[in-house]
Amino acid sequence: AIVVTELRCQCLKTIPRIDFKSIQSLKVTPPGPQCTQTEVIATLKDGKEVCLDPEAPLVRKIIQKILNK
Amino acid sequence: AIVVTELRCQCLKTIPRIDFKSIQSLKVTPPGPQCTQTEVIATLKDGKEVCLDPEAPLVRKIIQKILNK
Repeated sequence: AIVVTELRCQCLKTIPRIDFKSIQSLKVTPPGPQCTQTEVIATLKDGKEVCLDPEAPLVRKIIQKILNK
Repeated sequence: AIVVTELRCQCLKTIPRIDFKSIQSLKVTPPGPQCTQTEVIATLKDGKEVCLDPEAPLVRKIIQKILNK
């Protein structure tokens, strides 16, 4: 069964930095038919969602940090 | 408002590799009160979810690859 998720880009604007401690989880979506750019969406501990810039050095650092925990 | 998500680990077992092309999105969750280990959950294009080993070199490579697209 093919599951239809969002059929367009979900990030209209991205932010280049965020406090690591505020992150509940991170969703990374590679480019695909639904959106031609990589999207990184952080779900925060307060339930909010923010889009992060996948090319921002600090965002990459955060992902590395999570993987190295 | 504090949003309660899963209150336990979601990955019972992980796999060390996966075909990059089959991935729809990746969710990375750092350790927290709900689970003491980092969890990487891939949603596949067929809608299935699989847990990836965050320490596996291939999994790290896939994340790098997505970020560099």
